[in-house]
Amino acid sequence: MHPRNAGATAAARTTADAGSNGADDVRIEHDCIGSLPVPAKAYWGIHTQRAIENFPISGIPVSHHPELIRAYALVKQACARANADLGGITHTQCRLIDAACRDLYDGRLDDQFPVDVLQGGAGTSTNMNVNEVIANRALEIAGRPRGDYRFIHPNDTVNKSQSTNDTYPAACRLALIFALRKLIRSGEALAMSFMALSHRTAHVVKLGRTQLQDAVPMTFGQEFGAFHSVLCDDVRGLNAEIGRLSTVNLGGTAIGTGICADPRFRETVIRHLRYVSGIGVEAARDSIAATSDMGDFVDTSSAMKRMAVHLGKIANDIRLLTSGPQAGLVEIHIPARQAGSSIMPGKINPVIPESVNQSVFTVMGMDTTVAFAAEAGQLQLNAFEPVVVHALLDGMTILAHAMDTLRANCVDGITVNAAVGRQRAEHSASLATSLNGYVGYEEAVRLAKKALAEGRSVHDVAVDEGRIRREILDDVLDPLKLSRLHE
Amino acid sequence: MHPRNAGATAAARTTADAGSNGADDVRIEHDCIGSLPVPAKAYWGIHTQRAIENFPISGIPVSHHPELIRAYALVKQACARANADLGGITHTQCRLIDAACRDLYDGRLDDQFPVDVLQGGAGTSTNMNVNEVIANRALEIAGRPRGDYRFIHPNDTVNKSQSTNDTYPAACRLALIFALRKLIRSGEALAMSFMALSHRTAHVVKLGRTQLQDAVPMTFGQEFGAFHSVLCDDVRGLNAEIGRLSTVNLGGTAIGTGICADPRFRETVIRHLRYVSGIGVEAARDSIAATSDMGDFVDTSSAMKRMAVHLGKIANDIRLLTSGPQAGLVEIHIPARQAGSSIMPGKINPVIPESVNQSVFTVMGMDTTVAFAAEAGQLQLNAFEPVVVHALLDGMTILAHAMDTLRANCVDGITVNAAVGRQRAEHSASLATSLNGYVGYEEAVRLAKKALAEGRSVHDVAVDEGRIRREILDDVLDPLKLSRLHE
Amino acid sequence: MHPRNAGATAAARTTADAGSNGADDVRIEHDCIGSLPVPAKAYWGIHTQRAIENFPISGIPVSHHPELIRAYALVKQACARANADLGGITHTQCRLIDAACRDLYDGRLDDQFPVDVLQGGAGTSTNMNVNEVIANRALEIAGRPRGDYRFIHPNDTVNKSQSTNDTYPAACRLALIFALRKLIRSGEALAMSFMALSHRTAHVVKLGRTQLQDAVPMTFGQEFGAFHSVLCDDVRGLNAEIGRLSTVNLGGTAIGTGICADPRFRETVIRHLRYVSGIGVEAARDSIAATSDMGDFVDTSSAMKRMAVHLGKIANDIRLLTSGPQAGLVEIHIPARQAGSSIMPGKINPVIPESVNQSVFTVMGMDTTVAFAAEAGQLQLNAFEPVVVHALLDGMTILAHAMDTLRANCVDGITVNAAVGRQRAEHSASLATSLNGYVGYEEAVRLAKKALAEGRSVHDVAVDEGRIRREILDDVLDPLKLSRLHE
Amino acid sequence: MHPRNAGATAAARTTADAGSNGADDVRIEHDCIGSLPVPAKAYWGIHTQRAIENFPISGIPVSHHPELIRAYALVKQACARANADLGGITHTQCRLIDAACRDLYDGRLDDQFPVDVLQGGAGTSTNMNVNEVIANRALEIAGRPRGDYRFIHPNDTVNKSQSTNDTYPAACRLALIFALRKLIRSGEALAMSFMALSHRTAHVVKLGRTQLQDAVPMTFGQEFGAFHSVLCDDVRGLNAEIGRLSTVNLGGTAIGTGICADPRFRETVIRHLRYVSGIGVEAARDSIAATSDMGDFVDTSSAMKRMAVHLGKIANDIRLLTSGPQAGLVEIHIPARQAGSSIMPGKINPVIPESVNQSVFTVMGMDTTVAFAAEAGQLQLNAFEPVVVHALLDGMTILAHAMDTLRANCVDGITVNAAVGRQRAEHSASLATSLNGYVGYEEAVRLAKKALAEGRSVHDVAVDEGRIRREILDDVLDPLKLSRLHE
Repeated sequence: MHPRNAGATAAARTTADAGSNGADDVRIEHDCIGSLPVPAKAYWGIHTQRAIENFPISGIPVSHHPELIRAYALVKQACARANADLGGITHTQCRLIDAACRDLYDGRLDDQFPVDVLQGGAGTSTNMNVNEVIANRALEIAGRPRGDYRFIHPNDTVNKSQSTNDTYPAACRLALIFALRKLIRSGEALAMSFMALSHRTAHVVKLGRTQLQDAVPMTFGQEFGAFHSVLCDDVRGLNAEIGRLSTVNLGGTAIGTGICADPRFRETVIRHLRYVSGIGVEAARDSIAATSDMGDFVDTSSAMKRMAVHLGKIANDIRLLTSGPQAGLVEIHIPARQAGSSIMPGKINPVIPESVNQSVFTVMGMDTTVAFAAEAGQLQLNAFEPVVVHALLDGMTILAHAMDTLRANCVDGITVNAAVGRQRAEHSASLATSLNGYVGYEEAVRLAKKALAEGRSVHDVAVDEGRIRREILDDVLDPLKLSRLHE
Repeated sequence: MHPRNAGATAAARTTADAGSNGADDVRIEHDCIGSLPVPAKAYWGIHTQRAIENFPISGIPVSHHPELIRAYALVKQACARANADLGGITHTQCRLIDAACRDLYDGRLDDQFPVDVLQGGAGTSTNMNVNEVIANRALEIAGRPRGDYRFIHPNDTVNKSQSTNDTYPAACRLALIFALRKLIRSGEALAMSFMALSHRTAHVVKLGRTQLQDAVPMTFGQEFGAFHSVLCDDVRGLNAEIGRLSTVNLGGTAIGTGICADPRFRETVIRHLRYVSGIGVEAARDSIAATSDMGDFVDTSSAMKRMAVHLGKIANDIRLLTSGPQAGLVEIHIPARQAGSSIMPGKINPVIPESVNQSVFTVMGMDTTVAFAAEAGQLQLNAFEPVVVHALLDGMTILAHAMDTLRANCVDGITVNAAVGRQRAEHSASLATSLNGYVGYEEAVRLAKKALAEGRSVHDVAVDEGRIRREILDDVLDPLKLSRLHE
Repeated sequence: MHPRNAGATAAARTTADAGSNGADDVRIEHDCIGSLPVPAKAYWGIHTQRAIENFPISGIPVSHHPELIRAYALVKQACARANADLGGITHTQCRLIDAACRDLYDGRLDDQFPVDVLQGGAGTSTNMNVNEVIANRALEIAGRPRGDYRFIHPNDTVNKSQSTNDTYPAACRLALIFALRKLIRSGEALAMSFMALSHRTAHVVKLGRTQLQDAVPMTFGQEFGAFHSVLCDDVRGLNAEIGRLSTVNLGGTAIGTGICADPRFRETVIRHLRYVSGIGVEAARDSIAATSDMGDFVDTSSAMKRMAVHLGKIANDIRLLTSGPQAGLVEIHIPARQAGSSIMPGKINPVIPESVNQSVFTVMGMDTTVAFAAEAGQLQLNAFEPVVVHALLDGMTILAHAMDTLRANCVDGITVNAAVGRQRAEHSASLATSLNGYVGYEEAVRLAKKALAEGRSVHDVAVDEGRIRREILDDVLDPLKLSRLHE
Repeated sequence: MHPRNAGATAAARTTADAGSNGADDVRIEHDCIGSLPVPAKAYWGIHTQRAIENFPISGIPVSHHPELIRAYALVKQACARANADLGGITHTQCRLIDAACRDLYDGRLDDQFPVDVLQGGAGTSTNMNVNEVIANRALEIAGRPRGDYRFIHPNDTVNKSQSTNDTYPAACRLALIFALRKLIRSGEALAMSFMALSHRTAHVVKLGRTQLQDAVPMTFGQEFGAFHSVLCDDVRGLNAEIGRLSTVNLGGTAIGTGICADPRFRETVIRHLRYVSGIGVEAARDSIAATSDMGDFVDTSSAMKRMAVHLGKIANDIRLLTSGPQAGLVEIHIPARQAGSSIMPGKINPVIPESVNQSVFTVMGMDTTVAFAAEAGQLQLNAFEPVVVHALLDGMTILAHAMDTLRANCVDGITVNAAVGRQRAEHSASLATSLNGYVGYEEAVRLAKKALAEGRSVHDVAVDEGRIRREILDDVLDPLKLSRLHE
C-alpha cells in the first residue's frame, strides 16, 4: 500500500472491521446532523468520522505533521489548566485532560488523526478530532468507557472557553515554530559547512565570473564564503519569524470576540501556554484581526522562499563549477554518489545538488499555494488555513532535508582544482582591469584585445610594452590581498 | 508511522534487519563507485540502494505513483520485445523480462520502489531501479539467484538499446496519460452532475449578479449550466493533452542520438508499445529536442490549471450562494456534511467546496513548481523531470478527488430556494434594463432610482407612470424566454 | 515627462486648460450620479471623465494597447450594421457610426482613451469611453456639436443591443488575436533563424551534455535544430489559441441573457463582424458561461508561458555555450553588442540573451497575474478582465520584441568553434558508451575510468587492449550518422 | 503616440534628425567594439546609443523610474567626493561632477535615460548611461564640448573606483528606499482612514461571519479596526525593509574584490553617501556575497506581497459587504464613483475596490517575476537585477496609488447600514453560542435548530423554555462588551 492512502485506508479498515464483527465493535455517536457508528476502539468520535468520509482528497492525513499534534496538545493542556484556575472545569477533569494531552504530545496517539490535510472547515475537523481524542483518552484514564461525554465532553469540557477560530491558529503557530527550529538547525549546519570549505580554500586563487564571462581573480574561499553569508542572513530571517509566530489569539474564541470565555481567560491561558511550551507566547493585540489574518504565514513562506532562492543559486553554481569531467569548467570536485547513467559507463552526475534544485522548485510552488490561500480569506475568517499550514510544514521539512543531504553528501566532500583555478586567473585578459589605474580604461581595452588575440597574458603584454612594472600587478593575484574585503 | 517516511523507512528497515541477521541476509553489489550490501531479498540492486541513502528529502517514494511503475513496465516490456525481434537479446531473456514486466504492471512489486520522488539524476535512479527489479524478478522466474547478472543484466539486457534519457520521459508520459484518464472521468462526472442540476432548476427564476451587484433575471438552470459548460471545455483540453503526451522519444537513447541502438529499434519498439499499452504512441520527430523538452508537461499543467481556475470559481460561487442561513444570500442549500463549529451550536459550513478551494490552491502551487523546473533545463537534458512529473501526478490525483467529493457530497444534493430567487428577480431595480428599448437609457435611470427610493418594483413605477404596458415586461421574468440563449 | 503619466497627465492637462480658459472650454455632461464638466474638445464624455479621476493607478492608459481600440472599433461597427439591419437604429446613424469606427480603427483617435488599464468596472469604463468617442465623432461628422446625444446617444444608439458584458470580451478577444499574430510572426522568424543556423552547422561535431556533465557526441546542427523544433511547437500552440479566441458572446448583452437585444441580433452581428474583421468569429454556445469565463485567457497565457519556458532555456544555453572568452565553454561566438563592463576593459557580455531571460521572467509574472485574476470571478461576471487582458497584451509585446532582438542581434550572427567542438567529442571518456554493445556496460566502465585516469582517448585504450577495431568506433563521431535521427 | 514607445522613439528620432541634417548634428564616439554616431546634443554617449538599439523590448525607458536616476546621482556624487578625498580625481573634476549630479538629482536630465528597463547587461548600460550623462553635463558646465573625455572621462573619472557591480545595486537600493517611503505613507494614510471609520462605527452591532456563514455578533468598528491592524503590521514590515536595503557594497568594484579601488574608498564613500542621501547607509560585511545576492530584493517583494494579500482581502470584503443594492448583504454603502453599466440603468459597481484587486494581482505577478529572476543568478553576479528592480519599483507605485484611490474614493466615504446590522445580529440562530455556558453545547444545538425552524430568535426560545433569564443574554449584543478584546 502506498502512503497516500495510509491514513484514510486505516480509518476505513477500522470501520470495516467493526462492521464485519458486529454491533459490539462500534459505538453510536450523534451530532447536529444525525448519528453515525464510530469504531469502538477509536479515540476519535463522530466529527472525525464524518471528516474521514468527507475529505478523501490528498490521502495525506493530519498525522503527517506530528508537530501539529504536539502543538495542539500543548494548547489544550494550557486551556484545561486555565479553565480549572477559573472554575470552568473541575480539577479532576483538568488532571485527566492534562494526562491525555501528555500522551498526545508524546506521539502515542498519532494514528488517531486520520483526517485529510486538505480538509474543509477552517481546521474545525482537526480541532474536533483533538477534542474527541483527548476526551476519550481522558475517559479511559478515568476508567470510563469511550463516548461517556457527560463526564468529559469534547466541546463543553475539552474545548471549554475555546473555538477552532483561536485554538487552531495557535496550534498551527506553535507547530510552525517547532518545524522552523529544525529548518534553522539544518540551515546553520549547511552554512557552517560552507564556512569550513571557505577556510580550506581561502588561499586558492581562481577567476571570478560575471554573466558567465571571465571577470577578475578571486579565491575559492571568497566564493564559498558568500554561500555561508547568504545562508546566515536567511537563518536570521527565519529566527525573526519565530518571534512573529509567537503571538496567539487564545481567548478570542469565535471570531475573536471572546464570547463564552471568562474575560480573565486570555491572560491565564497565555501564562500556562508559556509554561508548558517553553515558548514566549504573547496575546494578539487585536484578536478580531488575528482570527482571520494570514500575514505571518505569508511572511514565513517568504522567509523560506528567500532561503530557497539562495539554495537554488548555490546548487546551480556547484553544478556549473563541477561540470566536466573534461568538457566543462572542472573547477571543483564533488563526491560521487550514484552511477549517473544507465547507458553511459562511468558517468557521474551532480545528483545531490539536483535534488536540492527540485526541493527549491517545490518550495516555490508552496509559496504560490500560500499566497492564493492567504488572499482568499473572507470577512471574519480565512477558511483555508489548513492548506496554508500543510504547505508550510511540508516545505520546511523538504527544505531541511535538502540542506541536510547537500551538506553531508556533497559540500563536506568538495575539493577544488587549484591548478585550473590559478591557471585561469593568471591568463585571463580580464586582468586588464588592474591596468585601469595606470593606463586608463581605453588603453587597457587595447591591451586586453591584443593579449586575447595573441594568446598571451595581458600582464606580459603590458610589461613588454613598458606600460607597467610586473611587481605592481602581482597584487591582483595575491590571495591575501584578495581576501581583504571578505571577512 | 506517518506515511512520509513509509518508503524510506521500509527500505532502511530491510537493510537494518539484514545487518542484524548476519552476512547471509545481504548480497554485495558493485558499480563504478564501489560496492555496497543490498538486502538479500530485495529485487532492487546497488543503484537503488545508493539512491535510498542519497535522497531522504520528501519521504514520498516513487511507489506513491503506481501509474509510473505501470507505465515503466509497459515501456520495458516493449523494449524487450523489440530487442528480441532485432537480435539484441535472446528470446529466453525476452520471455523472462516480459513476465517480470507483467508482475510490475500488476502492482505486485510496488514496494520495491523506495527511492524519493525528489531524487536527483533526471530519473536515472528510477530507471536503474526498474532495470534492477525486472532483472532480479526475471532471474527469480528463471530459478536463478538475485544478482546473477551474467544471465540477465540490468543495463546490458533489460536496458538494452535504451537510456534514462528516452525511457524515463516515455514512461512519464504514459503515466500521465493514465492519470489524465482518471481526471477526465472525474471531470465528466462532475459536469454531468451540474447538467442534471441545471435541468432540475431550469425553470426557477433568480436575479443574476455582476460585480456582486444586482443585475438582470436569469434561471438557476442557466447558472449551473454554465458550470457544466466550462468543465466540458476543460475536459476537451485534457483530452487534447493525451494526444500530445502520446509522442515518445524511445530509440533516442543518450540525448536523442540513438547511440547503442539499432536504427530499426525506434520503429520496432513503437509498434510493440502501441500493442502492449493500447495507446496510439508515436515517435518524436526530433529526438534531440524531445529529450530535453518539457513543453508538453507545461501544457499538461496548464490544462489542469485551467480546470482548477474553474473549480475555484465554482466553489466560491456555491459558498456565496449558500451563505446564511439567515444573514447571507441563502439562494441554494447544500447538504450538511459536518458540524461546523466547536463552539457555535448547529453551525453548518460549506466544508466540501472549501476543500475544493484548497485543492485548487495546491494545483496552482504545482503549476509554479512545474514552470520553475521546466525553465531550468540545460543543454541536452532537463535534470528536473522527476519533480515535474511528481507534481503533475499529485495534482491530478488531488483535482480528481476534489471533483469526486464535490459531486458526491455537495452538487448532487443541491436544492434551490425558489421563493427567494423569484422575489429578488421581481423586485430588482435592475429590471429597468428592460425599459431601455422603450424609454431610453437615461429615462430608465430615472425610473430605477425612483423605484429604489420608494421601495417599489420598477415595473410598477413604469406602468403607473404610463410609460409601458405590463405585459411587455413579463417576458424578462419568463424562464422559457430566459433560457433562449442557453442550450 | 516619463510615459507612466502620459495618459493621465494629458487628460488632466486638457481639463486644466479648459478650466483656466473659462466655461467655454468645457461642456457639462450628466449621468446617474450627477453632472461634470468635460473638456469641450474631448470626444469622450462624462463616464470617461469620471474614470480618469477614479483610477490613477498604473499611469498606463488604455491607448497603450492600440490593438484593443482597433478591435473595439470593429465590434462597434459590426453592431451598428446589425442594428441597422434589424431596425434598431437608422441607416443614417449607422453610416455615421460606421465612419467614426473607421477613424477609430485607423488610430486617429487613440489619444481619446486616457483611462488607466487597471480600471475597475469590468471594462465598463472602456466600453463607455468607446461609445462616447464614437458618438461624438459621429456627431462631428454629421456637423453637430459634441454632446448632442439626442441625435446619436452613446448608450441608446452606439451601445444598442449591447452590454459591456458582451462587447468588452469580444473586443478583448479580437485584440488578443491581433497581438498573437505579431507574436507568431516573431516566433516563426526566430525558429527559421535557428533552422538556418542548424543547417550552417549541420556537420560540425561537438560533445553533448546531460546534467552539465559530458555525454555523447552530437552536432551543433542537432543542438540548434532542437531550438527550431520547440519554437515550431509553440507557434502551433499559439495558432490554436487564435481559434479559441474567435468565439465571442455578442448578443448576450447583460450576463448573457440577451436582454434588450433582438433575438436575431446574435447571428446578424456575427456575420457582420466576420466581414469587417476578416476573422472567422463564431457565437459562443453558452452565452451565460461565456460572459464570465476566463478559460481561454488562461489558455492564451499558458501558451505564452510555454514559449517563454523555451526561450528561457534557449537563452540560458546560448549564454552557457558562449561562456568565456577563455575560462568558459567557448563553444559558440555571439555578436558583440555592448561593452560589457564599466571597469573591466574589453569585456563583452551576452546582453541580448540576458534581455530575453528578463522578458521571460516578466511573462512568468504575467501568467501569475492572469491566474489570480481568472480565479477571482464571481457569479455572472469576472470583474477583473481588464488586468487579464492588459497582462496578456503586454506579455505578447514583450515576448515578440525579445524574440526579434534575439534573432536580429544574436542568433543570425552566431558562429561555432568547430575545433573545440571536435576536440572535446573525440577525447571524451563518454565515448565508452559506444563500447557497450561490444564489451558490456561494466567492462566499458573500466575502460572509461582507465582512459580518464591516463588522460587518453577511450577509443585508443579500447583498441590498444584489443577489445575492438577502430573502424567500428568512427561511426559515433560521423556527423552524417549523428544526424540520422534528426530531420 | 502611446507611451510604450516614447523613450525608444524619442531616442530614434534624435538620431534620425541628426542623420537627415548632416554630420554636424552627430558626434562620433568609439568603444571596444567600434565607433558609432551619437546625436550631437545628447548627453549620453556610445554605450547608451548601442543599448537603445539593442533592447527595444518593453518600450519603457529607465526614466520611467525617476527614483533610480535620483539615487544614482547621489551614488556618483558620493563617489566623486570620496575619489577627490583620496586623490583619485582632481578637486576641479569633483566640483564639476558634483554639479552635474545635482542636475541629475533634480530631474533636469531625466530625458537622457532612454534605455529600456528590460536591458541585458546587469545594469551596465544604465551605469554607462549615468557616467556618460554626468561626464558630458560636467564638461558642459566647464565650457567644454561633449565627448571631450580627456578632461572628464565617463569610465576613468566619473566611474573611478567603481563598477556596475557595486554602484548599480547601491543605486537600486536607494531607489527602492525612496519608493518604499511613498508606499509607507500611502499605507499609513489608508490605515488611519480605517481607524477613523472604525471609531465612527464603534457602537454599531452586526453579525460576524466565518466561512460566509452566520457567526456571532460583533461591531462594525471591530471589523474595520481589523483592517487598520493588518495594514499597520504591513507598514512595520516595510519599514524593516528600509533598514535591510540600507546596506550597500560600494567599494567592492568588480565582483566585490575591490580591485581598482583604494582600500580606504569603501569607508570614505559610505561616509559621503550618508551625508548626501540622508540615509544611514552601511557597508556590506561580505562584499562578494553582496554583489550577487538578491535576498533583500526578495524580502522587499515579500513585504509588498503581504500588504497586497491584505489589500486584496479588504477589497473583497468591502465588495461583499456592499453587495446589493437589494439582493446582496447591503451592510455598508460606498460612494458611487461611476455609472456601473452601459445597459443596466442606475447600476453602481464597486469600481474602486475592483481596481485595488487588480493592483493586487499585478503585484502577485511581480513577486513571481522577482522570484524567477532572483533564483537565476550565476556565480559572482545576478545579471537580472534590472528586471527585479523594475518590477519592484512598478509594484510599489501601483500599490501606493491603489491605496490612495481606495482611501480617498472609497473608505473615507463608507457608511454603515446600522438597522440591517442590528437586525441580523439579534435574530441569528448563532446566538445559541451564548447559551453554551448555561445549557451545554448539545442542548444549545437543539435550541438553535428549533429557533431556525420556527423563525424565532434563539434567545426568545431559550427564555420561553425557561432555560435562561433574558438579562444574561443581552451582553452578547452590547457593543461596549463586544469591544472589550479590541483596543
